[in-house]
Amino acid sequence: MKRESLGLRIHDEHLEVLDQTQLPRDEVWLPIREVADMIKAIQRLSVRGAPLIGVAAVMCLAREALREKPATEILQSLTELRASRPTAVNLMNLLDQLKRVYISSGHSKARLIEEAFRLFDEDVQLCERMADNGQKLIQDGDNILTHCNTGGLATVGLGTALGVIKRAHQNGRKLHVFVDETRPLLQGARLTTWELQKAGIPFTLICDNMAGSLLSQGRVQKIFVGADRITANGDAANKIGTYSLAVLAKHHGCPFYVVAPKTTFDLSLKDGRDIPIEERKADELRPAGIGYKCDVWNPSFDVTPRALITEIITDA
Amino acid sequence: MKRESLGLRIHDEHLEVLDQTQLPRDEVWLPIREVADMIKAIQRLSVRGAPLIGVAAVMCLAREALREKPATEILQSLTELRASRPTAVNLMNLLDQLKRVYISSGHSKARLIEEAFRLFDEDVQLCERMADNGQKLIQDGDNILTHCNTGGLATVGLGTALGVIKRAHQNGRKLHVFVDETRPLLQGARLTTWELQKAGIPFTLICDNMAGSLLSQGRVQKIFVGADRITANGDAANKIGTYSLAVLAKHHGCPFYVVAPKTTFDLSLKDGRDIPIEERKADELRPAGIGYKCDVWNPSFDVTPRALITEIITDA
Repeated sequence: MKRESLGLRIHDEHLEVLDQTQLPRDEVWLPIREVADMIKAIQRLSVRGAPLIGVAAVMCLAREALREKPATEILQSLTELRASRPTAVNLMNLLDQLKRVYISSGHSKARLIEEAFRLFDEDVQLCERMADNGQKLIQDGDNILTHCNTGGLATVGLGTALGVIKRAHQNGRKLHVFVDETRPLLQGARLTTWELQKAGIPFTLICDNMAGSLLSQGRVQKIFVGADRITANGDAANKIGTYSLAVLAKHHGCPFYVVAPKTTFDLSLKDGRDIPIEERKADELRPAGIGYKCDVWNPSFDVTPRALITEIITDA
Repeated sequence: MKRESLGLRIHDEHLEVLDQTQLPRDEVWLPIREVADMIKAIQRLSVRGAPLIGVAAVMCLAREALREKPATEILQSLTELRASRPTAVNLMNLLDQLKRVYISSGHSKARLIEEAFRLFDEDVQLCERMADNGQKLIQDGDNILTHCNTGGLATVGLGTALGVIKRAHQNGRKLHVFVDETRPLLQGARLTTWELQKAGIPFTLICDNMAGSLLSQGRVQKIFVGADRITANGDAANKIGTYSLAVLAKHHGCPFYVVAPKTTFDLSLKDGRDIPIEERKADELRPAGIGYKCDVWNPSFDVTPRALITEIITDA
């Protein structure tokens, strides 16, 4: 049993994740030896991106099953992984699906492993379908603005929003990407630029606060972003800053697309107000060497109402 | 002849500027021994803030006059200082005024020195008047969002936007400030937080891309920002990110105030499209350790049209 993506690789019991916190400087693969290693990797954002988090958690449990762990331990690990981050629902959706299969099969380790690998392969396929569906929206000469990282480092396939952009490029469309650096952890500056240069797609890095100026100059034709949870009414949680972009897009009449697979939907929630928003450590923002008390507000996500979204592009 | 502000001090020929690039970690004063030292200090942002840049340049020429430099050299230095940064017009306005006095007095060094110190004192007075005018807009319990640094480090007085906030606090108004960190050089996170803690005003630091989320939650009652150049029709250039804030403010019905003294006005320009916008080095944005080509767009300022500004608060 073997699978490999840009940020995750498994070969029988050997499971490794790329430490995305060290990109683009170093490409360091972290071995996952215990479930706790994966939880730590998810919480410190070595593994990030809604679809990738879900698949990584699932592969971690497949490894536990390969190691012949007892059912009680596997179910306990599943519960702990499920709680490792609160906002992206792919983690909960994939683990709930794995649990259903495991329990309905009478705790069959073989069925759990099979389902885990199926979920890996499904994510690849979902990316392909989103990419094919979304690329039709991109015209020759488009300048596309994107936020955070939504590519091969955020999924185990081509990506969500960035997958659409890559597919359009593969299909010969001439395009240029403006990359929001995405404070505070710079997933755009560190990860999206890394993927775009690997793909040979021309791009320009900007600070998040420059997007409005770009839009006012008519230099952006379309905005594509991902999502971490989409509620029944179509509201979408995504990386902090997405909502500001959506308001700016509306003000300037710029199309604003959210790209997400079915695993990002949470139909149990009526609207975005019900999505739990993770708040992270103040130290991610505090300037170096600050010697006084500095209160910080550091939400990882915000919610964009459906009314500000031109279209949600899915695998369907 | 002696004057001292939060970021500039002169005692006869001894002129020093606080190196704002090292705040908040270290408070290091840089001696200005030559005009070239001041130009370098302005260009590397050791000295920044539209009114402060203007006064600093003027004090640098006062020092040259105290050192009995010949008129040709003084006028040459004035021309070089005037070109050190392109967007903030206070630099040009103050130097043009100094030049008028110097030339009309038949190159009187005494008149130049007198006028330079008068311009220092005038900036202090302009700050006082803006603060008094603007503080009336602040109510008990207000949460105020601000961008960049517009306080005692940006002027030689109380400040522009931050001066208004400080005066409201001095007058006993209970208020709380949300501070945009202000990428790429973090003048909000490094300088505004430093001033606010010195003043004992409660504040919370956020990333620039979090302002939209805050506004959507109704957690901001007013936005106050400064300006680097205001044209005849009321368009205002200010630190990059200001325009995005203005659009967000409009979308959420939040009052958006620009605070600037008469020295920030450029009535020779019809509207904001004519304002030269400085673009700075790509290295200010490129992530550490990046090993591939990374194009960057790094404008220091953007222009907010008058229609998005609730009111321009001046010294008048």
